[in-house]
Amino acid sequence: MPNQRIAVIGGVASGPAAAAQAKRTDPDAEVVLLEKRSHISYGACEMPYYVADWIEEAETLIVLTPDEFEQTRKAKVQIHREVLAIHPRRNRLDVKNTETGEVREERYDKFILCVGARARMPDGVGCDANNVIPMRRLEQAIAIKQLVDTKSIKHAVILGGGYIGVEMAEALRARHIRVTILEPMPTLLSQYLDEELSPVIHDVVKKHGVAVRQEKAVGFEHDDAGNVSAVRTDKGEKIGCQLVIVAMGVTPNTTLAEAAGVAVGETGALAVDAGMRTNLPNVWACGDCVEVKRVIDGRPVYLPISPVAYRTAHVAGENAARRGRGAPAKFPGVCVASAVKVFELEVAAVGMRLEQAREAGFDAFATTVQHWSRVRIYPGSKPIHLRYVVERRTGRLLGAELVGEEGVAHRADVLVPLIRKGWTVGDIRDLDLIYTPPFAPSLDPLLVAANKAMKEVKR
Amino acid sequence: MPNQRIAVIGGVASGPAAAAQAKRTDPDAEVVLLEKRSHISYGACEMPYYVADWIEEAETLIVLTPDEFEQTRKAKVQIHREVLAIHPRRNRLDVKNTETGEVREERYDKFILCVGARARMPDGVGCDANNVIPMRRLEQAIAIKQLVDTKSIKHAVILGGGYIGVEMAEALRARHIRVTILEPMPTLLSQYLDEELSPVIHDVVKKHGVAVRQEKAVGFEHDDAGNVSAVRTDKGEKIGCQLVIVAMGVTPNTTLAEAAGVAVGETGALAVDAGMRTNLPNVWACGDCVEVKRVIDGRPVYLPISPVAYRTAHVAGENAARRGRGAPAKFPGVCVASAVKVFELEVAAVGMRLEQAREAGFDAFATTVQHWSRVRIYPGSKPIHLRYVVERRTGRLLGAELVGEEGVAHRADVLVPLIRKGWTVGDIRDLDLIYTPPFAPSLDPLLVAANKAMKEVKR
Repeated sequence: MPNQRIAVIGGVASGPAAAAQAKRTDPDAEVVLLEKRSHISYGACEMPYYVADWIEEAETLIVLTPDEFEQTRKAKVQIHREVLAIHPRRNRLDVKNTETGEVREERYDKFILCVGARARMPDGVGCDANNVIPMRRLEQAIAIKQLVDTKSIKHAVILGGGYIGVEMAEALRARHIRVTILEPMPTLLSQYLDEELSPVIHDVVKKHGVAVRQEKAVGFEHDDAGNVSAVRTDKGEKIGCQLVIVAMGVTPNTTLAEAAGVAVGETGALAVDAGMRTNLPNVWACGDCVEVKRVIDGRPVYLPISPVAYRTAHVAGENAARRGRGAPAKFPGVCVASAVKVFELEVAAVGMRLEQAREAGFDAFATTVQHWSRVRIYPGSKPIHLRYVVERRTGRLLGAELVGEEGVAHRADVLVPLIRKGWTVGDIRDLDLIYTPPFAPSLDPLLVAANKAMKEVKR
Repeated sequence: MPNQRIAVIGGVASGPAAAAQAKRTDPDAEVVLLEKRSHISYGACEMPYYVADWIEEAETLIVLTPDEFEQTRKAKVQIHREVLAIHPRRNRLDVKNTETGEVREERYDKFILCVGARARMPDGVGCDANNVIPMRRLEQAIAIKQLVDTKSIKHAVILGGGYIGVEMAEALRARHIRVTILEPMPTLLSQYLDEELSPVIHDVVKKHGVAVRQEKAVGFEHDDAGNVSAVRTDKGEKIGCQLVIVAMGVTPNTTLAEAAGVAVGETGALAVDAGMRTNLPNVWACGDCVEVKRVIDGRPVYLPISPVAYRTAHVAGENAARRGRGAPAKFPGVCVASAVKVFELEVAAVGMRLEQAREAGFDAFATTVQHWSRVRIYPGSKPIHLRYVVERRTGRLLGAELVGEEGVAHRADVLVPLIRKGWTVGDIRDLDLIYTPPFAPSLDPLLVAANKAMKEVKR
């Protein structure tokens, strides 16, 4: 086979990772990264802190410019290239140069779809005003910061109380802007936490002057300049504002892939095997456009977060480039672990919520404890709220939620491998975790919760 | 069998835990806790912070007074009772009332030895001056604090640069006392860390005005009041001081047990099985007087730290009290995990040092990385130094050392179950640990080190 040509379609997070890994795997391959906009490879998770002005320059968010990427990773980068159609059987792409408008057909042997996801927008509400901005891409974060820097923004409405909505609320409060979050669910962060621990979060958010309303946007009012001046809600309220941030989650971009014959899975994202291969033999996919396997129950989930994007990209890049030598790379699935800073709180969730566990068919219960981040009498010790979701018959840990002012995110990390490998709360109770007064109480909260859960496990 | 009588000999840490667990296991048993001094059940690990004045009252260190213990745990407490001899075959104890001097023989069916350990003292140096105080028991911590509070202590010499020596150095610096640590080994904390990471620690200790000398005390000079006024060292130095803290480690108290026929293991501590039973059928032992199994290689180690004391005590208490119902409790062995605060540093060690791994017969190598506690550009991110000890052939993680200003101790906890279960660095690389800019970089230091170690593992 002559030198193979690999097209990596989409350049933000998984794209550069997949392209780099493909080139590492087969240095003779011609690997081309096609991105329809101008930025590749930036730190999207840092963007709220850029808006907050804790990170001053947008440039620091950019991990690699196209030039730097080409120089260090040896793959080619073509920005302002929109892929209009993929023809996997004919090994062709229709590519439009968005600067010149020119459309060309290009030949590739293999395709890696890194087409990502797009912000979900409110239904039936025109969102084309300049001050209605989804928090998704770097240019959107830059636009938000520019508005905050240059316009008199007194009040912002955030659509969505998920982790980006909450992070943006903190960022805008840091800029002394009043904030209202509209979230139709009864609690914030409801994708991550069952209701039990949410009062702790709501209290802190309220304390910092953020209004949370269980409502959704049904319309906008505009000023003479065409900017949104108020949000109308499903409860008939009209909330005046100078900025609307859309943070309602994302939808995988599947249209292009589906038109090419790539199958979609039950979550609505592209279906791939553990090697990130789609149903088509020369098409791989990764990042925010694919679904992945949750190791706890083997079911597919849609988890568009950065670590999953990078890891699936490595696998897709390697497998697309390899020529049958050795074993294909495999993505080991996800435990589902995430954390979010909510003002002074750390909030973390691992595995399944109780409701998710029950939906997945587990006979599960939840145990909650409140304990301490350090030895209680040591200065600075803070309460930690910890909830375990446990299979009743076996004692297997299925999930955990942690909320507190310190020592939360890394304690959640302790549980990631344990949930992955099916550890029981009895196994956890036996762990000799560190006890040092400035860092952890004599019985760590993780062990206290395990002890309590043990009592509810059926013998 | 009539109601059994169980003697728990020694009342500080493991004793109360064993007595309480014995009583829980057999509520009909008469469980008697015999302690030769006056305090039981206090937080020894918090004592340096009491001396520092971060914890003001000694009372807050006392978890339970003898009265509270009797009321809540239902076991009897006899303080000022020194056990002079144990006669397991005759089911007798010789007990001296240290207040009256009276010696009595008492009958018990079962014996739990919780006789702990004593401070190791410098060889051939008389240590009976009032200002030479081991940092071991509550009354000693109180005596040190009293000297600091009431005398003009300008300079203190600490004998020993292990974790208690280092904690005491910080405590005394907080009280504005000049401090010199005498440590014959080339580095501080040499039991926990190989030399590679120790410069970070020495720099911080020095920065805070603590002198560290690779010397040992060979004599004291005294003033007219009989207090030590200077320490003479093996290098011929004479160091003037008003206080000497002895923190040279501990030696298990085995004399009483050995006289009764209890076998000692290869570490010099009492030998017990996984059920904490000694070689004698009606004698159990636990806490700082026993050796325990290191799960990595199955070898006995002497690890006199609080979590081990409590856990072994639970097992000993339960097994001594049970009357053959169900399966005996088993101590699952230790991974060996500990952490210590060294001024602004968190220092943690899990499993084996490289040297220990090689002594245990592993063909091992070590990999060190420096990474970040949070996303590098996020405010407050601090360097983390991380060293893995890895078996060359299999990639199995045998140990880890971590040093940094934040996010160290709990990251070490992540490794405890993994080292326990024989995870390889390849397994660790695949973990989906949390990535959230305020808490962890996109590749956590734990994963960065695993990636680097992977490259040195033999295929």
